[in-house]
Amino acid sequence: VTAGRAHPRLSLNQATVKYAPLSVALDVTRAAGIQAIGLWREPVVAVGLEQAGRLVADSGLRVSSLCRGGFFTAVPGASRNAALEDNRRAIEETAVLAAAGAAGSTAVLVLVAGGLPEGDRDLVGARARARDAIGVLAEDARAAGVRLAIEPMHPMFAADRGVVSTLAQALDLAEEFPAEHVGVVVDTYHVWWDPDLAAQVARAGRGGRIASYQVADWVTPLAADALLSRGLPGDGHIDLAWISGLVAEAGYRGDVEVEVFQQEIWNADPGQVALATARAFASSAGVPAAR
Amino acid sequence: VTAGRAHPRLSLNQATVKYAPLSVALDVTRAAGIQAIGLWREPVVAVGLEQAGRLVADSGLRVSSLCRGGFFTAVPGASRNAALEDNRRAIEETAVLAAAGAAGSTAVLVLVAGGLPEGDRDLVGARARARDAIGVLAEDARAAGVRLAIEPMHPMFAADRGVVSTLAQALDLAEEFPAEHVGVVVDTYHVWWDPDLAAQVARAGRGGRIASYQVADWVTPLAADALLSRGLPGDGHIDLAWISGLVAEAGYRGDVEVEVFQQEIWNADPGQVALATARAFASSAGVPAAR
Repeated sequence: VTAGRAHPRLSLNQATVKYAPLSVALDVTRAAGIQAIGLWREPVVAVGLEQAGRLVADSGLRVSSLCRGGFFTAVPGASRNAALEDNRRAIEETAVLAAAGAAGSTAVLVLVAGGLPEGDRDLVGARARARDAIGVLAEDARAAGVRLAIEPMHPMFAADRGVVSTLAQALDLAEEFPAEHVGVVVDTYHVWWDPDLAAQVARAGRGGRIASYQVADWVTPLAADALLSRGLPGDGHIDLAWISGLVAEAGYRGDVEVEVFQQEIWNADPGQVALATARAFASSAGVPAAR
Repeated sequence: VTAGRAHPRLSLNQATVKYAPLSVALDVTRAAGIQAIGLWREPVVAVGLEQAGRLVADSGLRVSSLCRGGFFTAVPGASRNAALEDNRRAIEETAVLAAAGAAGSTAVLVLVAGGLPEGDRDLVGARARARDAIGVLAEDARAAGVRLAIEPMHPMFAADRGVVSTLAQALDLAEEFPAEHVGVVVDTYHVWWDPDLAAQVARAGRGGRIASYQVADWVTPLAADALLSRGLPGDGHIDLAWISGLVAEAGYRGDVEVEVFQQEIWNADPGQVALATARAFASSAGVPAAR
């Protein structure tokens, strides 16, 4: 048993070992001495929610979040209704998985807004529809004891993946609802460039809105698929210790996920990736151990 | 003679016909009925400043800007001094070329801040040094009758190309100096995603800070080299008519450049590109004709 060797607040986001089935992801996380995991819906659905809950319970790991809901920028109609229904399922999954996780698990559902609908150039309108969808789902989240976490996406994804582009904008949305049920994700990869970052992290802290803190580095040159241009902590240009300091000052004491979309890492052995993630996090993320 | 056929405020930024020598760029611009051009330093240097001035004067075109100065985020020392010297040359070139252009030319030097120095993760520090460099150069600009135009770059370039990432940040910098000598560039490609865009364009207008308005579209999927992912107006996701409306309401009445970095366009015949640019601008940029 090697549990306890990794940083006590590190959580391995499952996307970092994207090709590993759930059971493998849980095993390599625990074997690397990591105490928490951030789950993704697809590998959970692949084994079924009930079985996923059993695997999570048996692992002894904390669950820090479920990725991801959202993608609700469609105009009113069948497509929007389907998106809302899918988000309701994601809320239920979040509640089940967090309950299955070890003490300290958090029922957090990460929300990515989605991009512009096909052929639609009305960014202002798409943002308004994302706000309306969160308004609908906040009530479902409350009923399920789940917290929605709005994730601002890097502005390079505004057209095709996420119309919520800054932490300020995510907070503007979240603050329309109780902090207990709607918070934000601070993901270094998405927000590191923001000239207003320090002020907005402090604002998020004051309001108790930081539902998740995710760490990944910004690597250049950008990969041919820019989505895959993340790096492990220390491999890129972000002053992670500075941002982790801002988040600590803002009062966040929860688990910190490392979420790296990168083809080379995905192609590697997941056990080795978990160990490399634990090393990189300990040496370069600048996250204080105290919870 | 076909002059007068294109939109009266369109200016062809020379980067759109990147491989054309200056004389060819001037010829195809005029042949397409475009009345103004935004020049780049490299093709000017290739023929020498004096000869470039003669070619510009002979063309009868207005000069809307010179691209580009900046790249001054180095720490104090030889590298920073060299950058400042190079910017002083660019200021002189701007004055000469604008004087050579037809009536209505504007002596505007576009500034791109530059990215993080090699191995440096201190984004806050790099931004402070960019501010200091603008402070030094504002005096040179004033002496030469040139206006510096700070261009916020899309946040995806913060690490390697430009640490000024938003219009608000560019205005914060510019407003430390007289509007006559330091303004900003509004480039749709760089700022379209900004949730605060309408407010910041209005702010720029109130202060008389819009030194240049550039139009290019955002095309997905991003090109393998994200820098080359621009499109002609109408080919992408940006509501250009909305942004052009904001810029018009803000009081900007000058030339509007189309600046498209795209390999396919660069590979095409420059005369055809100039004509296609004129068509795309007329149909999709939403710029009012009134100056």
